[in-house]
Amino acid sequence: MQRDPILLTPGPLNTTDRTKQAMLRDWGSWDSSFIAITAELRKKLLAIVHGEETHVVVPLQGSGTFSVEAAVATLVPKNGHVLVLDNGAYCKRMGKLSTLMGRKTTILPHAEDAPVSVAALEAQLLADPSISHVGFIHCETGTGVANPLQAVSEVCARHGKGLIVDAMSSFAALPIDARALRFDALVAASGKCLEGVPGMGFVFIRKDVIEGSSGNSHSLAMDLHDQHVYMEKTGQWRFTPPTHVVAALAEAMRQFEEEGGQPARLARYTANYEALIGGMKGLGFVPFLDPAIQAPIIVTFHAPADPKYAFRPFYEAVKQHGFILYPGKLTELETFRVGCIGAIGPEEMRGAVAAVAATMRELGIASGAPNLR
Amino acid sequence: MQRDPILLTPGPLNTTDRTKQAMLRDWGSWDSSFIAITAELRKKLLAIVHGEETHVVVPLQGSGTFSVEAAVATLVPKNGHVLVLDNGAYCKRMGKLSTLMGRKTTILPHAEDAPVSVAALEAQLLADPSISHVGFIHCETGTGVANPLQAVSEVCARHGKGLIVDAMSSFAALPIDARALRFDALVAASGKCLEGVPGMGFVFIRKDVIEGSSGNSHSLAMDLHDQHVYMEKTGQWRFTPPTHVVAALAEAMRQFEEEGGQPARLARYTANYEALIGGMKGLGFVPFLDPAIQAPIIVTFHAPADPKYAFRPFYEAVKQHGFILYPGKLTELETFRVGCIGAIGPEEMRGAVAAVAATMRELGIASGAPNLR
Repeated sequence: MQRDPILLTPGPLNTTDRTKQAMLRDWGSWDSSFIAITAELRKKLLAIVHGEETHVVVPLQGSGTFSVEAAVATLVPKNGHVLVLDNGAYCKRMGKLSTLMGRKTTILPHAEDAPVSVAALEAQLLADPSISHVGFIHCETGTGVANPLQAVSEVCARHGKGLIVDAMSSFAALPIDARALRFDALVAASGKCLEGVPGMGFVFIRKDVIEGSSGNSHSLAMDLHDQHVYMEKTGQWRFTPPTHVVAALAEAMRQFEEEGGQPARLARYTANYEALIGGMKGLGFVPFLDPAIQAPIIVTFHAPADPKYAFRPFYEAVKQHGFILYPGKLTELETFRVGCIGAIGPEEMRGAVAAVAATMRELGIASGAPNLR
Repeated sequence: MQRDPILLTPGPLNTTDRTKQAMLRDWGSWDSSFIAITAELRKKLLAIVHGEETHVVVPLQGSGTFSVEAAVATLVPKNGHVLVLDNGAYCKRMGKLSTLMGRKTTILPHAEDAPVSVAALEAQLLADPSISHVGFIHCETGTGVANPLQAVSEVCARHGKGLIVDAMSSFAALPIDARALRFDALVAASGKCLEGVPGMGFVFIRKDVIEGSSGNSHSLAMDLHDQHVYMEKTGQWRFTPPTHVVAALAEAMRQFEEEGGQPARLARYTANYEALIGGMKGLGFVPFLDPAIQAPIIVTFHAPADPKYAFRPFYEAVKQHGFILYPGKLTELETFRVGCIGAIGPEEMRGAVAAVAATMRELGIASGAPNLR
């Protein structure tokens, strides 16, 4: 049967028809009807983290990485020093963008199959008092590991260090409460667990931090202080906003509320994750991570040992059955990834497992079991 | 009657239903069907400027300003020196972003009601041999003036200076032929005369220039060299692309070709411009620019002298009649702007003039004539 494939990817992901239909209009970026959409978005985003009293939220054009770079550029002074806790590809990306823009950057390396270490963070902060900010990835999408946000936040607060959180693939799914959690900036994007389309990010910034950040940014387009001041004054974006993406996100957030907000979303993604893991284990597949540290966002599986397996034909055959998988992002081990997020439920995950099973029969792959030594 | 208002704005602008309907699908950014859309886009963009042999085109997430900043960051070495020819708001923006990122920048100021001076450019290049690059806005959207691209290009070529052209609001409407015109980079965006939705820009870069630009950018997200190398190798964008915006642009470009490409688009916009100017003059309005230097893209009108006129109520009343105007961007003079671009024709422009006439009757504005001393 002809239908659009279901995306088992960590964003862009499946959005509802209602969300996409919100894009069937054009808006003037200067007009009050669009200004109202931006205002609605900002208000609802702040409510999700309970940051109305303490934080602002600054939307930014571009992909999520643009917002991460903007957060570092705007918050870290030119003589600052960023310590990046690294247990995966997106941590490395934060370290790279911080280094490139000329901020002193130290990388604290970790294994990819474990959360970052709070003890190692604390030791590093004690060893090098010049560190001004800690860069941290909440859910490392490269593997799917959930990193210890609360504990890292407490260490940073105790040592008086700024904390910049990349919550790209966790925001709106995992609980994040600004009343109980101290952070300077927390970054996410439209095309992830809010189930909008990709094209914009947004950064939650503590009020005293944004007020003190004027003049830090070397970039005009990425200056979140400037964007915030202009938006507060005019209700508008400084430069042309991605109007259709913004409207789709507003519509997606109405559905997020109707579903029951973050707890309901986490429950659905957890059900997706359990349907996926249960089905895949039945086919012999083994997940890369210990379930205790696995977020129900994206799952990395070891590649099957069967010599008939190769990722590209496997991917194409599963796609023929209507499901889009995601390649692995580990350099040392052959893996593939399956996303649990987006406008899909356990039925779709069971369908995905059935598609994998059918693909294995077609390609003659006897089992999903990997060769683990 | 209830209908969506018509946007007489310089982008975001009206797009066709067909273009918007292209967004009613979700794409995996890694998948071959989306890679094919990106490839189609890049091929067709290069063909518009006849740059297949000499140039590459690098798409970038974000608004057009992100692409302008990326072009300066990627092309101008850290010890370079940018001369910006300034006759309006977007020229000033280019000067500001170049200064902020730490490139030595000189602004060559001009009046806002005249094109930039080729003689002044040449004199400045002779006076200061340290200038490595010239920053130039083709159609200054702040006023609507068409600047002399061909002549500026010849002077830069003769003096061996790099030329970075912001062709945001001219590209695909005014003729630009890379076979007859030497430039290092030329920047435009999805939501302008190609009549796509906003959310991405693209930069044409001469092949020898992109090859020599590795390591210039202080920004990871805005490094066009890195974006280009990755896209050539994988067909993919480095970071999450605005998939729906990209698909809408591809669909808009199919319609651009069906209409007859740049000459047909220029003919339609010229007809729009003439319908607008003729009608508005009949109501007493006076355009800010001499018609000889006016591009048929966006028209700045003087505010009427009638004391019953004020922009905000005028704007709201015209909006009630179904048309969205655009505020002026001059600091010294009171003006407003009317765009001639987007998926509209002379019928819509005559409708806009009728809406302005009806608004004048309602507000008791006797004439559009300004008080010019």
